[in-house]
Amino acid sequence: MTRPPANVGDPVSAVDTPALIVDLAAMERNMEKMAEFAKRNNVRLRPHAKPHKCAMVARRQLALGAVGVCCQKVSEAEIMVAAGVTDVLVSNEIVGEAKVARLAALARQAKISALVDHSDMVEAYSAAAERFGSTISVLVELHSGGIRAGVHSPQAALELARLIDKAPGLTFGGLQAYRGHAQHIRPFEDRREASEKWCAKVAETRDHLEQNGFPCESITGVGTGTCEFEATSGVYNEIQVGSYAFMDVEYGLNRDVGDVLVSNFENSLFVVSAVMSSNVPEFAVIDAGTKAMNVDKEMPWVWKWPGLSYVGNADEHGAIEISPEANPVKLGEHLWLVPGHVDPTIGLFDWMVGVRDGVVESVWSISARGALS
Amino acid sequence: MTRPPANVGDPVSAVDTPALIVDLAAMERNMEKMAEFAKRNNVRLRPHAKPHKCAMVARRQLALGAVGVCCQKVSEAEIMVAAGVTDVLVSNEIVGEAKVARLAALARQAKISALVDHSDMVEAYSAAAERFGSTISVLVELHSGGIRAGVHSPQAALELARLIDKAPGLTFGGLQAYRGHAQHIRPFEDRREASEKWCAKVAETRDHLEQNGFPCESITGVGTGTCEFEATSGVYNEIQVGSYAFMDVEYGLNRDVGDVLVSNFENSLFVVSAVMSSNVPEFAVIDAGTKAMNVDKEMPWVWKWPGLSYVGNADEHGAIEISPEANPVKLGEHLWLVPGHVDPTIGLFDWMVGVRDGVVESVWSISARGALS
Repeated sequence: MTRPPANVGDPVSAVDTPALIVDLAAMERNMEKMAEFAKRNNVRLRPHAKPHKCAMVARRQLALGAVGVCCQKVSEAEIMVAAGVTDVLVSNEIVGEAKVARLAALARQAKISALVDHSDMVEAYSAAAERFGSTISVLVELHSGGIRAGVHSPQAALELARLIDKAPGLTFGGLQAYRGHAQHIRPFEDRREASEKWCAKVAETRDHLEQNGFPCESITGVGTGTCEFEATSGVYNEIQVGSYAFMDVEYGLNRDVGDVLVSNFENSLFVVSAVMSSNVPEFAVIDAGTKAMNVDKEMPWVWKWPGLSYVGNADEHGAIEISPEANPVKLGEHLWLVPGHVDPTIGLFDWMVGVRDGVVESVWSISARGALS
Repeated sequence: MTRPPANVGDPVSAVDTPALIVDLAAMERNMEKMAEFAKRNNVRLRPHAKPHKCAMVARRQLALGAVGVCCQKVSEAEIMVAAGVTDVLVSNEIVGEAKVARLAALARQAKISALVDHSDMVEAYSAAAERFGSTISVLVELHSGGIRAGVHSPQAALELARLIDKAPGLTFGGLQAYRGHAQHIRPFEDRREASEKWCAKVAETRDHLEQNGFPCESITGVGTGTCEFEATSGVYNEIQVGSYAFMDVEYGLNRDVGDVLVSNFENSLFVVSAVMSSNVPEFAVIDAGTKAMNVDKEMPWVWKWPGLSYVGNADEHGAIEISPEANPVKLGEHLWLVPGHVDPTIGLFDWMVGVRDGVVESVWSISARGALS
């Protein structure tokens, strides 16, 4: 682990670059708004910890109304449980004897749920739970299109629910129905339509399970981009939103096309970077490139500096184009960037620097950074 | 830092996924070939540590003929020096009082060089070197096109050389002339032509400096994609190649178009990943996505499994398309992937698992992972 880029009490201008900065007040407002939205729609809020991988952020989410968190990896869940989180849904299929053993052992320490989409997984989870004397809540994942995990029919879901129900050490926990590729469908009306079709499919599977004696304790899924539709559909009783706490360029584009709920969320997460070369007025080079920001979908935005655009990335450098109308940029100047895609950006850093009113209030370890297994 | 994905002595099949694996024999053959190439062309080999960020890999490079390493960040250099590397070129401009202080302090512990492209940097480096009683070797960076750092003319280079020469605590170290965007020009003949033009420009600046009393101790630059031309040009006396030790999909494409030198290097670096969903014969989902592999330029290749293609990435998942002729893929099966781009992939992991003859021989900490400042 590297040296923290700031000390508590530092002015924000003293943060060493590049660094990940969170505007604590904006993040907390986002969390409160989502908690209120969930309450109003009578769904449980189980934020996804995969974007932030930070136990301190998870604890803040729990303090502000979340019932637990989601993780994507067993190793993430281990770290969250070690930090005091008592209810974790690993929203993924777990394959491999060592990993399943860790999952089952962790279920001795906290309420642990995980997904299956194949009978082999039910067998493996059950054997491990018996070995460790634990109970795992097991949800069946519903395939949502494309090359993704999940079962392809209500019948297949029922078959797995039956197996889970009979398997020692397991309880049937319901349905996982997350439609990742719908989160960024633009325009707005297309996203609404896609979400409605998907909700009908989820409801069909839910009904088939219920009619056959397997009511779903949880019907869980829903991302920041679809919560406006899915969370209000009456089909789900739990939402797994993650990006809402921070926002990013991708979700900013959703906001631009009329998403009412997403428009309430503020950008709270930034990569702060310094100008390290500025020999001509038309461009500058900054010290944040591919190793400090994911750019596979959208380039970052330069925050509150009209006329500056991040137009290219090298591994350690960012290329900034400067329009003639922009305020000039000096060597050493700090630029704040809104990351293109929050999830794979946060995990590039060891530390998340929390700022309030221009002063560093927290330097949190991104405790599950690198937890890939 | 996370738990290592393997133990020394484990069979390779026991490595927890996703994990970064290096074929040690292939990596060593690559290192030996490049050392031999450098010797034959009478250039010093100073491999770049920015792709691997791993002190143990750097030490292997030094043992096999390198004179020192390059780093891109002061924090990387600190970690390399702490691991026993005694000669580091930070091939970057260093801006900001705290960073420059660390650079100057490090120059008490090892031979440290760094770049400038502006007179303010010369002043800052000199003040810090005086403060710490150290000497920094300072090279002038030559702009190589696009939005990149560097001076734009031989005259500007000379002006900075004069300032460096007069500045207390600094010595003029020569020219940095790395042309990053030429590394992947394809086809081959276009890359040759681009390299020849660039070498002529470097030579012009070198001559201008020399004629004015500033001979260059080092003319350094050159990547794996251009070393066939630049290292043999007579202009350079030092090469900063990095990817040659591992190779990746991008350099594989260079190889495909007739690059004779690059064709000698073997893929030694892999991300090993497990199949975690396999409900239909046409596709499978694996446990390595954007958080385990950089995909901003090229998708990974599936290694030695004809008919399997990595066609899409989610944060934690990879989409594998399976052609009808391919050998079938089972749940839990390990796939080895050649990363699209080696540099931003390695830093996603905490550990590099070294394998020889199917057995884990080393589990190296990627010691400068997360060292971004």
